[in-house]
Amino acid sequence: MAKNQQNTLEKIVSLSKRRGFVFQSSEIYSGLNGCWDYGPLGVELLRNVKDAWWKAMTYREDVEGLDASILMHPRVWEASGHVENFTDPMVDCKQCKSRYRLDVLYESYNEKRRKKIADAYAVLLTDKGEDGEAFKAQPREQQLEVAGDALVDHAEVFNAMNEKELLVCANCGSTGSFTVPRKFNLMFKTFVGPVEDSNAVVFLRPETAQGIFVNFGNVSQATRQKVPFGIAQIGKAFRNEINTKNFLFRTREFEQMEMQFFVKPGTDDEWYEQWRDMRLQWFIDHGMKKEKLRMHPHADDKLAHYAKAAVDIEYEFPFGWGEIEGIHNRTDFDLRRHQEFSGKGLEYFDQESQEKYIPYVIETSAGASRSLMAFLVDAYEEEELEKETRTVLRFHPKLAPFKAAVLPLVKRDGMDEIGMKLYRDLQKDFKVFYDDSGSVGRRYRRQDEIGTPFGITVDSETLEDQTVTVRDRDSMQQERVSMDALRGYLSDKLSV
Amino acid sequence: MAKNQQNTLEKIVSLSKRRGFVFQSSEIYSGLNGCWDYGPLGVELLRNVKDAWWKAMTYREDVEGLDASILMHPRVWEASGHVENFTDPMVDCKQCKSRYRLDVLYESYNEKRRKKIADAYAVLLTDKGEDGEAFKAQPREQQLEVAGDALVDHAEVFNAMNEKELLVCANCGSTGSFTVPRKFNLMFKTFVGPVEDSNAVVFLRPETAQGIFVNFGNVSQATRQKVPFGIAQIGKAFRNEINTKNFLFRTREFEQMEMQFFVKPGTDDEWYEQWRDMRLQWFIDHGMKKEKLRMHPHADDKLAHYAKAAVDIEYEFPFGWGEIEGIHNRTDFDLRRHQEFSGKGLEYFDQESQEKYIPYVIETSAGASRSLMAFLVDAYEEEELEKETRTVLRFHPKLAPFKAAVLPLVKRDGMDEIGMKLYRDLQKDFKVFYDDSGSVGRRYRRQDEIGTPFGITVDSETLEDQTVTVRDRDSMQQERVSMDALRGYLSDKLSV
Repeated sequence: MAKNQQNTLEKIVSLSKRRGFVFQSSEIYSGLNGCWDYGPLGVELLRNVKDAWWKAMTYREDVEGLDASILMHPRVWEASGHVENFTDPMVDCKQCKSRYRLDVLYESYNEKRRKKIADAYAVLLTDKGEDGEAFKAQPREQQLEVAGDALVDHAEVFNAMNEKELLVCANCGSTGSFTVPRKFNLMFKTFVGPVEDSNAVVFLRPETAQGIFVNFGNVSQATRQKVPFGIAQIGKAFRNEINTKNFLFRTREFEQMEMQFFVKPGTDDEWYEQWRDMRLQWFIDHGMKKEKLRMHPHADDKLAHYAKAAVDIEYEFPFGWGEIEGIHNRTDFDLRRHQEFSGKGLEYFDQESQEKYIPYVIETSAGASRSLMAFLVDAYEEEELEKETRTVLRFHPKLAPFKAAVLPLVKRDGMDEIGMKLYRDLQKDFKVFYDDSGSVGRRYRRQDEIGTPFGITVDSETLEDQTVTVRDRDSMQQERVSMDALRGYLSDKLSV
Repeated sequence: MAKNQQNTLEKIVSLSKRRGFVFQSSEIYSGLNGCWDYGPLGVELLRNVKDAWWKAMTYREDVEGLDASILMHPRVWEASGHVENFTDPMVDCKQCKSRYRLDVLYESYNEKRRKKIADAYAVLLTDKGEDGEAFKAQPREQQLEVAGDALVDHAEVFNAMNEKELLVCANCGSTGSFTVPRKFNLMFKTFVGPVEDSNAVVFLRPETAQGIFVNFGNVSQATRQKVPFGIAQIGKAFRNEINTKNFLFRTREFEQMEMQFFVKPGTDDEWYEQWRDMRLQWFIDHGMKKEKLRMHPHADDKLAHYAKAAVDIEYEFPFGWGEIEGIHNRTDFDLRRHQEFSGKGLEYFDQESQEKYIPYVIETSAGASRSLMAFLVDAYEEEELEKETRTVLRFHPKLAPFKAAVLPLVKRDGMDEIGMKLYRDLQKDFKVFYDDSGSVGRRYRRQDEIGTPFGITVDSETLEDQTVTVRDRDSMQQERVSMDALRGYLSDKLSV
């Protein structure tokens, strides 16, 4: 990450703490890695992001809402493939008992060591009768990457390197001391009831999607929806990530906004494209810069076990491009598996075509926490004015934590009373800030820094003609508006 | 629970499933005890309950919002007292390995056995030099209760009864076969990181309150709020209840709406009374029947270890009175403990009085899931009309899942097109239902059953004069409203 980019992220993290967007979880106890708390501004921003998504996704005749529990029957995760596949390979050092995820171990090695490993890998290939020479003909960088991938993905490669004493424990420095790699499941587990045995194990859901699949029958019966239709859900999910990083980007506890759209097989490609485009547009409609967004389709050989097609919507964060939403054609994988594992029929009878089938699923899976972070980063700007630098969060008005701030010019002559009355009136409809201390210029800056779109100043003119100054956050232009008309004025501006 | 009352609860549970308010979690896998999923109507009702609470509690100048993570640093729960005190006493049967919570075991005994236990308890008292005769002079029912409490609360009483072979295992029928009681903690635990040892244990929070306490410093710094002020939060909490019961009332996963109000010591009694009254009023303002609500103050000798005063707001459910919210004067217990355990200063400097102190806390702790259930039960009514029984959910319009239903009289002559256009227009502002199938009377009934306040019918008159019929759910009165005026009409009616 380039230095100035890193600075940007640091500035945003610092602003987030200082003004109350995001705090480290349990900070007074030195924090809990991979968990964050949303402060007074963050919780409003998060609510606004989620509300905007909810309205866009469920205020339509073909999508229903759902809120499934975080704890689910453990068979759900067998059917979904998570028990078997949602794993990272790990090893222990037999000497000092340190535990490593394989990719992290490899990443910790310097180029010299990686080079040794790549050379040994070439020999290994040749020994197995494969083309070690072709491997060595590749550019050096590519060799290191391919050898690293092989080490992580194939236990026999890891074991061979370990026996050759090429793998060093980063903690105690031993070589050749690693155990055979084993799969480490990323689901958090806990026990229901008083007995902590394998019969009582349940998992914290690692995704919200399965809550939708297992309710497909209940929802379609209760609502009498006909395919094609979708089910949307917002909720927490948990992954026992070994490496959390990049602020809200990779955390152990996070929130998802997922929608599963059930379609007739054969119409899935079309729906996939439609949802992909609609979802990209949603971010743009809510103010995200187009040039900071891109589509990253998954190559066929990189698709997850359930997917026929997949694309990431990526945002260019200060640390590089990162996924904020995935759109997947999951085929009939999930419903078919749940039918098999539960023994309950999940076929759909299509009255129009008089056919029975298991619907295909187009999934739109966005991170609420990641989207929030992208909106925050995207809104952040330092603007050079004549005499100073202005820090401003250019949130879309719908997403801004506060819609307006009421600022009586001085705390006397009745301006503060008028201000407080105005504040209380507006508060019935909008989340509004009240600030009566310090110079008005300073108060504007404080509002700019938290992205409040409108500053409303009560001044001596107000006492005469019942008008106030409304200052626009972005243009910094001011206009006089009658207090009577203020509610309508804000309503119009906010429902952009 | 009286038979007809039980029927009412059964009817509500059945309606909840049939129409899509609440489903059993993981139902296709036979469910997960103590967990429920909110269906399309339930999720809207829950959102509306939470939004109403959020606006009432945080759209004011002296309360800030927060959304803390579910996983927190484990020391938090040592400081709060949960590791030590949030326990139930449990025993195992040595013969068959069945495990029991003591109070549940005692409850499972018939009167004859309880009588034997009470008699033995009298002897025990006398043996210890206490007044066994006075105990036996009490009414029989009271004896059984006191003896039961002693059995549950005092391990030596349980052990003595067990040795006398008065305690039977409900599973295998053995007597005298129980282990010594031990404390079973009701917090769900899990492990962070790849190693499952005691250093890696974290808990799913059993209440949201502690997330507020540990953020007291961060929030007050970021917002520059001055005492008295509050911090409000909505979020999931988890308790490993052995006995879940009564639908959404006692569950393992649930949602809380909590607010902690920080006040200067000495002003706490006054604030306690103020918040208690405001919180009761909130339920009434949102349509709950006054006569179904009551205050249940806790007797001094029944207070929790942290409380100076406590009162439950109870609702009369079909199974009896049950707590839907608690208001507590928690004194400075929590902040003092967190200061002690974290080593971070949590004192507040009061600029006005130039004093340093640890604020007292008045807590308002409502169950979102329980409130939803109370609103659902309270709204449920079967009304005898001339020819039939009408089932209607008389939700307050703010809480109703759908605000209106658009019902074209017939699917032709352009009525369906006008209806769909109207539906799409209204959907921009309100959650609206569209239904064009079946007789309009039947469609009204279907809307009554899910509590939609307004039915909007497009009929032949509409084609002529652009008016529609608006039917009121409660009075069943109809009036003609111009389509142009409909948005304003609904806005007025809904912001009651």
